[in-house]
Amino acid sequence: MSDAGRGERLEALVAESELDVLLVGDLVRPGDSGPDAMANIRWLTGFTGTSGMALVGAGRREFLTDFRYTQRAAAEVSEDFERVTLEGRLLASVATRLAGRVGFDEDATSVSSLRKLTEVLPEGAELVPSNGFVEKLRRTKDAQEIAAIAEASRLADEVFEWLAGEGMAGRTERDVAKSAEARMRELGAEPAFPPIVGSGPNGALPHSEPSEREIGSGELVVVDMGARLDGYCSDGTRTWATGGVSSEARDVYELVHRAQEASLAEIRAGLTGAEADRISRDPIEDAGHSELYGHGLGHGVGMEVHEAPRLGKTSEDVLGAGDVVTVEPGVYVPGKFGVRIEDLVVVEDAGFRNLSSTSKELLEIG
Amino acid sequence: MSDAGRGERLEALVAESELDVLLVGDLVRPGDSGPDAMANIRWLTGFTGTSGMALVGAGRREFLTDFRYTQRAAAEVSEDFERVTLEGRLLASVATRLAGRVGFDEDATSVSSLRKLTEVLPEGAELVPSNGFVEKLRRTKDAQEIAAIAEASRLADEVFEWLAGEGMAGRTERDVAKSAEARMRELGAEPAFPPIVGSGPNGALPHSEPSEREIGSGELVVVDMGARLDGYCSDGTRTWATGGVSSEARDVYELVHRAQEASLAEIRAGLTGAEADRISRDPIEDAGHSELYGHGLGHGVGMEVHEAPRLGKTSEDVLGAGDVVTVEPGVYVPGKFGVRIEDLVVVEDAGFRNLSSTSKELLEIG
Repeated sequence: MSDAGRGERLEALVAESELDVLLVGDLVRPGDSGPDAMANIRWLTGFTGTSGMALVGAGRREFLTDFRYTQRAAAEVSEDFERVTLEGRLLASVATRLAGRVGFDEDATSVSSLRKLTEVLPEGAELVPSNGFVEKLRRTKDAQEIAAIAEASRLADEVFEWLAGEGMAGRTERDVAKSAEARMRELGAEPAFPPIVGSGPNGALPHSEPSEREIGSGELVVVDMGARLDGYCSDGTRTWATGGVSSEARDVYELVHRAQEASLAEIRAGLTGAEADRISRDPIEDAGHSELYGHGLGHGVGMEVHEAPRLGKTSEDVLGAGDVVTVEPGVYVPGKFGVRIEDLVVVEDAGFRNLSSTSKELLEIG
Repeated sequence: MSDAGRGERLEALVAESELDVLLVGDLVRPGDSGPDAMANIRWLTGFTGTSGMALVGAGRREFLTDFRYTQRAAAEVSEDFERVTLEGRLLASVATRLAGRVGFDEDATSVSSLRKLTEVLPEGAELVPSNGFVEKLRRTKDAQEIAAIAEASRLADEVFEWLAGEGMAGRTERDVAKSAEARMRELGAEPAFPPIVGSGPNGALPHSEPSEREIGSGELVVVDMGARLDGYCSDGTRTWATGGVSSEARDVYELVHRAQEASLAEIRAGLTGAEADRISRDPIEDAGHSELYGHGLGHGVGMEVHEAPRLGKTSEDVLGAGDVVTVEPGVYVPGKFGVRIEDLVVVEDAGFRNLSSTSKELLEIG
C-alpha cells in the first residue's frame, strides 16, 4: 500500500522545516504498538508490524525495527528506506542515530520515553516538538487508498444488510453489536471501532456503548460501525425502525435525512468544514432543533477513524480533492430517541463520490 | 470486581508519600482509552468505560468522567468514591481540581497532555512524576480476582482442547490463530493478546506473529494464547506435534518439560524471581542449550498480560502469596523448531495453585 513517493515527500517537508531529522513512530509503547499508533509508519513505509520507527531528513530515510521484525521489514518496507535492526534497548539504540534538531511527535511520546531518550541523547542533538508532519501528507488519499477505504465501506454495508435481515426487536443492544462484529470478522475485516447500537432513549446519548437494554418494537435504533481492512477504516451510520414509530420520530428522521442530503449536495473541493457544517445545520435550526444537534458534521477517515479534516462549526479546514470524510448530522431527543445518518465520501473537484451504499430511506426491520 | 478497601489502601499509600494527591488514569488518550490503559481505574473504582480518572489524597477519593459516562459511573463506581462529571475540555476541567504536589504517571502521560495540563495548572499546584502506586497494590490478587483469572484460564484451556481436536497440519498459522480467536469470542471472552502460532522453524522466533506458512506434518507448533474475561487476563502456551517428530525435537521437548516442572516444584512465597528463573535454566544449561533460552522464566498476569512481578535472571522481586505468574521456559533451535511450555499459577505460602489444566505431555495432533 506504500509507494516510494511518500518517503520523498516527507523528506521534502522536513527539508522545508527547521528540523535536521524527523523521528516517526510510537514513543508511548515503542516495541508494542496498536494499529492507530502504527498508522504513520505503515503509511510511510508499508510495514505492518507492531514495532518500528523511521528517521527522515535530508538524504536520509531509515526504517528501524527490532530483531523480531527484521524479516518482515525486508519483505514489506518500501525500497527507498534503508532497513536497520536496532540492538539492545530500543530508545538507547535509536538515540545513537540522532544528531542536530530532531523532531518528535508530542502526542505519540510518553513523558517517560522523552525523559529516557533525553538521558541518552548524543551531544549536539536536540529534541524538538514537531507534530503532524506525516498526518498532513496522509490527509489526501491516492487512488489505491481510496480503493482500500471503498472496500472496507462495502464490507460494512454488507454487514448492515445482514443486520437488517436478522432483525433487532427482542435482542439486547450488546447482542446486536457483538453479532455485527462477528459478522465483520467472518467477512475478513476487523471492526474499526466497537459498533454503537443505541435503541429508543439510548439513541439520544451520542456515542453511548451498547447496553443490556432489550430493543423494543416500534423504536428507532442508531447503528454506527466501520470496518478496518488492509489498514484502512470505514465509518457509517444508519438509523432504523423496529416497526412503526411515532410521527415525531418519523418527522425527525426526515429532517435529518434532508439535512444530510443538503450538505452532501454541496460537498466539493474548496468548501470549508464550517460551510459544510452550516448547510446541514440550517434545516435543523429552522425546525427549532438547534440544541439537539450537539456535534459537528463530520471528520476525515483513513488509516484512523478520526483524522483530518474536520467538518464543524469552527473548522477552518478547506476541503480538497482526495479528502475522505464522513457526513453525519444527527438530532437527539432526550429520553426518547436519536437519529443519525452518516455516509463516507471522497471529495472531488466538482463534487464527491459516495462510498456508502446502504439505503437512507427509513427502513422498518423486525 | 472492585471493593471499598482499594481506595482506602491507595489513600494510605499516598499519605505515606510526599504527594498531596495522586492523579490516576490515562493521559495519553484521555477520554478514549483501551483496556490496558484503563486497568488502574477499573481496579481502583470498578468503572468499565473508556473515559475516567481518579484523584486520591488525604480524605479525598474522587472519580472523574465526562457526560457520556455519568450513568455508568453511578452504576459501577465504588461507593467510597465521589463521582464527578467533568465539563468542557477534559484536562482543563481536571486542572481546576488540582492543588499542592500532584502525582502523575509518566508512562501513562503524553508529552502534549503534560504540556496542556501544565498550561492550565492553578497557582501553587505542582506536577510530580509518580509511577507505579496503583500497580504496586494491583500486584497481589484477592480471592475474587484469582477466581476471575482462573475462569479466563479455564476458558483458554477449553480453546486449547478444541484446537487440538481441529488439527493443524495443512492449515496456515494465521488460520489457526484466527480460529482460536473466534472460538474464544464464541465462548464469551476476548483474546488477551493476538494468539501466537509458530510452526516448524517459525517456532524458533520468539513472539513471532502467525504467518501464511502452511503447517506441515511431523512438526512442532508453539501455541501461546490468553483470554480476557471480566477485565482479567490469562496466558498459557503449549507446544504440540503434528504427527511424529525427530528425536532431537522430542528430546528438547522433554528437556523443557523437565525444566518447567522443576521450577514449578519450587514456586512458593519467599522465592525470588531470579531463583525461580535459575531453577528452570540449570537443566537447559546442563544440556548445552543455554544460548537457546533467550528470555526470562515468567511474569505477573492480572488486568494486563504483563505486570509485576518479573521472573528472570536479574529479577530482585520476591514472590508473595497472591502473585499470579507465568512459568514458561523455552528452547528455540534456529531454523528448526521451538518449544515453550507455559502454565499460569497462583503463588501461595507453601507452594502454588496451577490455573492451567491442559496436558503437558507431548501431544500428537492432526
